[in-house]
Amino acid sequence: MDQIEQLVQSVLQGNRRSIAKTITLIENNEPEAQKIVSMLYPETGKTHVIGVTGPTGSGKSTLIEKLIRELRKRGKTVGVVAVDPTSPFTGGAFLGDRVRMQEHSTDEGVFIRSMANRNAPGGLAKATKDVIRVLDASGKDIVIVETVGAGQSEVEIVKVAHTIIVVLAPGLGDDIQAIKAGIMEIGDIFAVNKADRQNANKAISDIQAMLEMDTEKTGWKPSVLKTTALTGEGITELLAIIEEHKEYLKMGALEANRKENVETELAEAIKQKIAESIIEDLKRKGEWEKLTQKILTRETDPYSAADMLLKKAKRN
Amino acid sequence: MDQIEQLVQSVLQGNRRSIAKTITLIENNEPEAQKIVSMLYPETGKTHVIGVTGPTGSGKSTLIEKLIRELRKRGKTVGVVAVDPTSPFTGGAFLGDRVRMQEHSTDEGVFIRSMANRNAPGGLAKATKDVIRVLDASGKDIVIVETVGAGQSEVEIVKVAHTIIVVLAPGLGDDIQAIKAGIMEIGDIFAVNKADRQNANKAISDIQAMLEMDTEKTGWKPSVLKTTALTGEGITELLAIIEEHKEYLKMGALEANRKENVETELAEAIKQKIAESIIEDLKRKGEWEKLTQKILTRETDPYSAADMLLKKAKRN
Repeated sequence: MDQIEQLVQSVLQGNRRSIAKTITLIENNEPEAQKIVSMLYPETGKTHVIGVTGPTGSGKSTLIEKLIRELRKRGKTVGVVAVDPTSPFTGGAFLGDRVRMQEHSTDEGVFIRSMANRNAPGGLAKATKDVIRVLDASGKDIVIVETVGAGQSEVEIVKVAHTIIVVLAPGLGDDIQAIKAGIMEIGDIFAVNKADRQNANKAISDIQAMLEMDTEKTGWKPSVLKTTALTGEGITELLAIIEEHKEYLKMGALEANRKENVETELAEAIKQKIAESIIEDLKRKGEWEKLTQKILTRETDPYSAADMLLKKAKRN
Repeated sequence: MDQIEQLVQSVLQGNRRSIAKTITLIENNEPEAQKIVSMLYPETGKTHVIGVTGPTGSGKSTLIEKLIRELRKRGKTVGVVAVDPTSPFTGGAFLGDRVRMQEHSTDEGVFIRSMANRNAPGGLAKATKDVIRVLDASGKDIVIVETVGAGQSEVEIVKVAHTIIVVLAPGLGDDIQAIKAGIMEIGDIFAVNKADRQNANKAISDIQAMLEMDTEKTGWKPSVLKTTALTGEGITELLAIIEEHKEYLKMGALEANRKENVETELAEAIKQKIAESIIEDLKRKGEWEKLTQKILTRETDPYSAADMLLKKAKRN
């Protein structure tokens, strides 16, 4: 058994160190990473992936911490992937309130990882999907993905989840912020967190009003509930709704969702692999430099250049 | 002269309706869009692109509005592209505080457009680059790109700018938020807006301390200044620093930056065009369906499937 096979076997057994090592390989886009993920692939598709998204300050991390605690009480194993853009200042993802979760670090049934955007080709979205797969294959019953929920790539990441929880807090100017962030339409469950604050009821009715405006939505009717992550209030109800949504998905939506995800990912893989090979080829022949020069002097533009390459490739 | 040529000529003359029409074609990813952008391409590269980014609530829009006013006084023409993720609730980008900018709507020297993410292939970043090109070719002296500045794609968008202004407001928990958003390392200028608030000085020194930690940075030393967009305080100083940065860029950084942007965009174009053509081909032959089925049954995974396609293509 070679080293890669050993690592794969160890990940399948849920070994914490091997999981961490594999994730690092993925983050750094090491050549072994793809092979490992491919080897783990047949053992994936068993976990329930929960996306938790919402603006900074809404208390997502605390809510996740309470979810972990409750899930562990029920005997479930949990993986957490917290996604944050890189900052060279911090040398990776910002730890902050995730420190609180350290107490789970001795529990073999919990694996928590902060992901930094290491500018891997294929991007953070691809790396996150692969990390979810690793946790899935390692036998975690539940995988939670946390994102700050603003911007296109963040939305793309959280869409991988089976159940998406949007966490909002009253008094954050959250209604308008949430619309801006484009996360309202992807939520299966809306948790108005810090429900002990003023305006919690207003936030609830604002969200409900907004959801009612979306008359085109069919299928699952998003739930809105109050939580207070700090005291643990509403966590049991939240888990009950997650269960309900999971049952709903089993009735057909899950398969459709899975097919869509596979098509998107296959398209992405083709883009990355084949384009990379073409670009390498151009560079080797010295044509890449010529093309970029032509674009710089505005003799042509990037899209016309790509068209020209495509026509050439088709002639051959 | 056919319709497309007429449209191109009219954009080059700065006609507002033609600019708007062209941008709509780009946003909807219409087949004519690429042709038009290619035809406009030789006339681009003249404008100075300013990126304005920062968290919601920092007062970016108001600051931009004041910049436009001052630039117009100085006889400069201005284009603005405000980028926001789509929400089906609003049927496009959220207008909100951009309404205030409507007063410029009768000024031929100003063109403002909110971009929605219409899930165009190639994404919002590509569409935004093309829109900047349209405004550039239409003769705008300055093009301002506004993003909420969180997430990978947002950072990608704002990187197109020659000068990047990061807008922060005291009391928004902005230091931590900014690190999280990964925007600290891309700022050429930091504007602490709402400087009349408490803690403005603390925000300034926090930013300066953070910048000093980044010892690897060479070249331009980012400026930090106070602004109060509402009253217009600091706007003249901000414009002076923008000028200074523009002069700095002319000393060489601009060319390096341009080459890097061209290479990135050519790689993106190749990915999109060639991968699309391959996927269409697979669909036509019925192989796409077979491949996705194999992935769904976990016989293979997306990246191994792409590898297999690549090997096959190389054999031919």
